[in-house]
Amino acid sequence: MAAVALDSSGRDQLEASGWAKVENRDAVEKKFAFIDFNEAFGFMSRVALKAEVMCHHPEWFNVYNRVEITLSTHDIGGLSDRDLKLAQFIDDAAQKN
Amino acid sequence: MAAVALDSSGRDQLEASGWAKVENRDAVEKKFAFIDFNEAFGFMSRVALKAEVMCHHPEWFNVYNRVEITLSTHDIGGLSDRDLKLAQFIDDAAQKN
Repeated sequence: MAAVALDSSGRDQLEASGWAKVENRDAVEKKFAFIDFNEAFGFMSRVALKAEVMCHHPEWFNVYNRVEITLSTHDIGGLSDRDLKLAQFIDDAAQKN
Repeated sequence: MAAVALDSSGRDQLEASGWAKVENRDAVEKKFAFIDFNEAFGFMSRVALKAEVMCHHPEWFNVYNRVEITLSTHDIGGLSDRDLKLAQFIDDAAQKN
Protein backbone atom coordinates (compact mmCIF):
# COMPACT_ATOMS: atom_id res chain seq x y z
CA MET A 1 0.00 0.00 0.00
CA ALA A 2 1.37 3.41 -0.94
CA ALA A 3 2.29 5.87 1.78
CA VAL A 4 -0.27 8.61 2.40
CA ALA A 5 0.83 12.15 3.29
CA LEU A 6 0.17 12.81 6.96
CA ASP A 7 -2.77 15.09 7.74
CA SER A 8 -2.81 17.78 10.43
CA SER A 9 -4.42 15.45 12.97
CA GLY A 10 -1.57 12.97 12.51
CA ARG A 11 0.99 15.77 12.80
CA ASP A 12 -0.64 16.94 16.02
CA GLN A 13 -0.42 13.41 17.41
CA LEU A 14 3.29 13.27 16.65
CA GLU A 15 3.91 16.65 18.27
CA ALA A 16 1.87 15.69 21.35
CA SER A 17 4.05 12.59 21.72
CA GLY A 18 7.24 14.65 21.78
CA TRP A 19 8.28 14.23 18.14
CA ALA A 20 9.77 17.58 17.11
CA LYS A 21 9.76 19.05 13.63
CA VAL A 22 13.14 18.90 11.90
CA GLU A 23 14.33 22.22 10.46
CA ASN A 24 14.15 22.60 6.69
CA ARG A 25 12.69 19.12 6.20
CA ASP A 26 9.28 17.54 6.47
CA ALA A 27 10.48 15.11 9.14
CA VAL A 28 10.27 14.63 12.92
CA GLU A 29 12.89 13.64 15.46
CA LYS A 30 12.98 12.40 19.04
CA LYS A 31 15.74 11.56 21.50
CA PHE A 32 15.62 8.56 23.81
CA ALA A 33 17.85 7.70 26.77
CA PHE A 34 18.17 4.27 28.33
CA ILE A 35 20.07 2.78 31.26
CA ASP A 36 22.94 1.46 29.17
CA PHE A 37 23.90 0.13 25.74
CA ASN A 38 22.25 -3.22 26.34
CA GLU A 39 18.89 -1.55 26.87
CA ALA A 40 19.41 0.93 24.01
CA PHE A 41 20.36 -1.71 21.48
CA GLY A 42 17.58 -4.01 22.66
CA PHE A 43 15.16 -1.18 21.89
CA MET A 44 16.82 -0.60 18.51
CA SER A 45 16.50 -4.29 17.68
CA ARG A 46 12.76 -4.23 18.35
CA VAL A 47 12.38 -1.12 16.19
CA ALA A 48 14.54 -2.66 13.44
CA LEU A 49 12.32 -5.74 13.21
CA LYS A 50 9.20 -3.61 13.05
CA ALA A 51 10.74 -1.28 10.47
CA GLU A 52 11.69 -4.23 8.28
CA VAL A 53 8.14 -5.65 8.42
CA MET A 54 6.75 -2.21 7.55
CA CYS A 55 9.35 -1.67 4.80
CA HIS A 56 9.79 1.71 6.47
CA HIS A 57 13.11 2.49 8.12
CA PRO A 58 14.26 5.16 10.55
CA GLU A 59 17.32 7.37 10.33
CA TRP A 60 18.99 6.94 13.67
CA PHE A 61 22.07 7.71 15.69
CA ASN A 62 23.24 5.82 18.77
CA VAL A 63 26.01 6.27 21.24
CA TYR A 64 26.00 4.09 24.37
CA ASN A 65 22.61 4.65 26.07
CA ARG A 66 21.31 7.37 23.73
CA VAL A 67 19.26 6.89 20.57
CA GLU A 68 18.20 9.77 18.32
CA ILE A 69 15.61 8.93 15.69
CA THR A 70 14.42 10.87 12.65
CA LEU A 71 11.34 9.78 10.73
CA SER A 72 10.27 10.77 7.23
CA THR A 73 9.02 8.97 4.13
CA HIS A 74 11.40 9.01 1.20
CA ASP A 75 8.74 7.95 -1.33
CA ILE A 76 6.65 11.05 -0.75
CA GLY A 77 9.43 13.40 0.39
CA GLY A 78 7.81 14.09 3.75
CA LEU A 79 5.78 12.76 6.66
CA SER A 80 3.30 9.98 5.96
CA ASP A 81 0.95 7.67 7.82
CA ARG A 82 3.87 5.23 8.05
CA ASP A 83 5.86 7.67 10.15
CA LEU A 84 2.99 8.04 12.61
CA LYS A 85 2.58 4.26 12.86
CA LEU A 86 6.30 3.67 13.36
CA ALA A 87 6.51 6.55 15.88
CA GLN A 88 3.73 4.96 17.92
CA PHE A 89 5.53 1.61 17.93
CA ILE A 90 8.81 3.31 18.90
CA ASP A 91 7.21 5.21 21.79
CA ASP A 92 5.58 2.01 23.03
CA ALA A 93 8.83 0.04 22.78
CA ALA A 94 10.77 2.78 24.60
CA GLN A 95 8.30 2.84 27.48
CA LYS A 96 8.56 -0.91 28.00
CA ASN A 97 12.28 -0.77 28.69
CA MET B 1 42.33 -3.34 31.70
CA ALA B 2 42.63 0.40 31.15
CA ALA B 3 42.60 1.79 27.62
CA VAL B 4 46.04 2.70 26.25
CA ALA B 5 46.48 5.75 23.98
CA LEU B 6 47.03 4.60 20.41
CA ASP B 7 50.59 4.93 19.09
CA SER B 8 51.53 6.09 15.59
CA SER B 9 51.75 2.52 14.28
CA GLY B 10 48.17 1.88 15.38
CA ARG B 11 47.04 5.16 13.83
CA ASP B 12 48.73 4.21 10.57
CA GLN B 13 46.88 0.88 10.61
CA LEU B 14 43.55 2.65 11.03
CA GLU B 15 44.29 5.06 8.20
CA ALA B 16 45.45 2.24 5.91
CA SER B 17 42.12 0.49 6.55
CA GLY B 18 40.13 3.52 5.46
CA TRP B 19 39.34 5.00 8.85
CA ALA B 20 39.53 8.77 8.41
CA LYS B 21 40.48 11.30 11.06
CA VAL B 22 37.52 13.27 12.41
CA GLU B 23 38.01 17.04 12.36
CA ASN B 24 38.67 18.72 15.71
CA ARG B 25 38.54 15.43 17.61
CA ASP B 26 40.92 12.56 18.26
CA ALA B 27 38.55 10.07 16.62
CA VAL B 28 38.18 8.16 13.35
CA GLU B 29 35.18 7.49 11.14
CA LYS B 30 34.26 5.15 8.30
CA LYS B 31 31.20 4.72 6.11
CA PHE B 32 29.81 1.34 5.14
CA ALA B 33 27.18 0.46 2.55
CA PHE B 34 25.28 -2.81 2.39
CA ILE B 35 22.68 -4.33 0.08
CA ASP B 36 19.71 -3.40 2.25
CA PHE B 37 18.58 -2.77 5.83
CA ASN B 38 18.58 -6.47 6.70
CA GLU B 39 22.27 -6.72 5.87
CA ALA B 40 23.12 -3.38 7.50
CA PHE B 41 21.35 -4.17 10.77
CA GLY B 42 22.77 -7.72 10.79
CA PHE B 43 26.21 -6.12 10.64
CA MET B 44 25.28 -3.65 13.39
CA SER B 45 24.06 -6.51 15.59
CA ARG B 46 27.38 -8.31 15.28
CA VAL B 47 29.26 -5.11 16.12
CA ALA B 48 26.90 -4.39 19.04
CA LEU B 49 27.58 -7.78 20.64
CA LYS B 50 31.34 -7.32 20.24
CA ALA B 51 31.16 -3.76 21.59
CA GLU B 52 29.26 -4.95 24.65
CA VAL B 53 31.82 -7.68 25.37
CA MET B 54 34.63 -5.12 24.99
CA CYS B 55 32.78 -2.51 27.08
CA HIS B 56 33.68 -0.19 24.23
CA HIS B 57 30.88 1.23 22.12
CA PRO B 58 30.77 3.00 18.75
CA GLU B 59 28.98 6.22 17.84
CA TRP B 60 27.00 5.30 14.79
CA PHE B 61 24.36 6.46 12.37
CA ASN B 62 22.23 4.25 10.15
CA VAL B 63 19.71 4.87 7.45
CA TYR B 64 18.51 1.90 5.39
CA ASN B 65 21.65 0.25 3.92
CA ARG B 66 24.18 2.82 5.15
CA VAL B 67 26.10 2.74 8.44
CA GLU B 68 28.50 5.51 9.50
CA ILE B 69 30.70 4.70 12.48
CA THR B 70 32.88 6.95 14.64
CA LEU B 71 35.34 5.46 17.11
CA SER B 72 37.05 7.15 20.05
CA THR B 73 37.68 6.31 23.69
CA HIS B 74 35.84 8.47 26.18
CA ASP B 75 38.02 7.43 29.14
CA ILE B 76 41.17 8.86 27.61
CA GLY B 77 39.56 11.54 25.42
CA GLY B 78 40.96 10.13 22.20
CA LEU B 79 41.99 7.06 20.21
CA SER B 80 43.09 4.00 22.13
CA ASP B 81 44.05 0.39 21.50
CA ARG B 82 40.36 -0.44 21.97
CA ASP B 83 39.43 1.60 18.91
CA LEU B 84 41.94 -0.25 16.77
CA LYS B 85 40.66 -3.61 18.02
CA LEU B 86 37.02 -2.69 17.45
CA ALA B 87 37.84 -1.21 14.01
CA GLN B 88 39.48 -4.47 12.98
CA PHE B 89 36.43 -6.44 14.10
CA ILE B 90 34.13 -4.02 12.26
CA ASP B 91 36.11 -4.24 9.02
CA ASP B 92 36.12 -8.03 9.25
CA ALA B 93 32.36 -8.18 9.93
CA ALA B 94 31.62 -5.79 7.03
CA GLN B 95 33.62 -7.89 4.59
CA LYS B 96 31.75 -11.04 5.51
CA ASN B 97 28.39 -9.56 4.53
